Amino acid sequence: MIIGKVVGSVVSTRKNENLVGNKFMIVEPVQSMRQTSGRVVAIDNIGAGIGEYVLVALGSAARIGCGQAEAPIDAAIVGIIDDGIGLE
Amino acid sequence: MIIGKVVGSVVSTRKNENLVGNKFMIVEPVQSMRQTSGRVVAIDNIGAGIGEYVLVALGSAARIGCGQAEAPIDAAIVGIIDDGIGLE
Amino acid sequence: MIIGKVVGSVVSTRKNENLVGNKFMIVEPVQSMRQTSGRVVAIDNIGAGIGEYVLVALGSAARIGCGQAEAPIDAAIVGIIDDGIGLE
Amino acid sequence: MIIGKVVGSVVSTRKNENLVGNKFMIVEPVQSMRQTSGRVVAIDNIGAGIGEYVLVALGSAARIGCGQAEAPIDAAIVGIIDDGIGLE
Amino acid sequence: MIIGKVVGSVVSTRKNENLVGNKFMIVEPVQSMRQTSGRVVAIDNIGAGIGEYVLVALGSAARIGCGQAEAPIDAAIVGIIDDGIGLE
Repeated sequence: MIIGKVVGSVVSTRKNENLVGNKFMIVEPVQSMRQTSGRVVAIDNIGAGIGEYVLVALGSAARIGCGQAEAPIDAAIVGIIDDGIGLE
Repeated sequence: MIIGKVVGSVVSTRKNENLVGNKFMIVEPVQSMRQTSGRVVAIDNIGAGIGEYVLVALGSAARIGCGQAEAPIDAAIVGIIDDGIGLE
Repeated sequence: MIIGKVVGSVVSTRKNENLVGNKFMIVEPVQSMRQTSGRVVAIDNIGAGIGEYVLVALGSAARIGCGQAEAPIDAAIVGIIDDGIGLE
Repeated sequence: MIIGKVVGSVVSTRKNENLVGNKFMIVEPVQSMRQTSGRVVAIDNIGAGIGEYVLVALGSAARIGCGQAEAPIDAAIVGIIDDGIGLE
Repeated sequence: MIIGKVVGSVVSTRKNENLVGNKFMIVEPVQSMRQTSGRVVAIDNIGAGIGEYVLVALGSAARIGCGQAEAPIDAAIVGIIDDGIGLE
């Protein structure tokens, strides 16, 4: 997983039907984890807000671990970090 | 997922039979997401046009989430972004 | 998927038994897709020749999409590009 | 897998329920493996301590290989390196 | 897959039980494939020696293709290259 900060969201009206009902947040990895991944669009079932630091699961873990095994999801916010101090 | 712009398409007559019937679009990730992925060839079942900003799923999510679990597909356009302003 | 040019092949006599019967081609991604992947060794069931531009599937899509789900294959040539003009 | 050093941990109270009970460690890959991955957050079921060199499995191997196939886990500490001399 | 040179090995006594019985080799990708992956730790069931050029499968292909679907393995040596001349 990587730690990132929620920096925005994105809306898609015309989309794959398996994606309906998901929110799409843009997550910016913290500096030390940008080699692992650049910015990604992750679904959010946790209720993260803009500016919060979150834990993001990538790959098949995102869809299977979030109970959406049949959806075209490759990134998901799976936790909110309690304390982001020192992460940047 | 990443956000990218559809910049072209590609035609392949001699191909794996599980790919027949798909369109192959070339997608250029927006600047902030290029660390996540460079340009990719993604199938398109949504009907994206050249110049549109799209949501692209990568990895196993692309084939499984698009109902083509047995096809050699690792990238798929799964949504069209409503408003691309500020993405670049 | 990525587009690349077949630049060579490689022979391995001592190998995993699930790989027997495959040809192994070295594929160089086109410039704009090198951020997605560097050179890879891909199996070829399509019959691509040296110098041809091909479509390559990466990850689990390569083995599952080519009917070799139990083989240690993570890259496969799955199509030959009809016209490589303008790709480089 | 990659070899890295445990450099910290992270706490997330609000998280995906399939993650409950896991410890989340921050692992810094050794210099020669940073091209493979930057820092990651990996679960730890082995009992690694800060400063120890560990073996980290990435991708679906992390959740399936650690008996948590349904959890959104994409990185796991799966071994402690006996001797880290010469790794950096 | 990528081609790399076996440059070392690593020992882990405290490890995930599904890893028991495997040898762990450090593989350095050849120059042209380093964009695909940096150094990795790969299991070896082929019997590769230090200095040999090998074919390495990455991701789920490594565990599934080597008959260890339940092990936390994301890289495996799956062949020894017959002739490494010209690879570097």
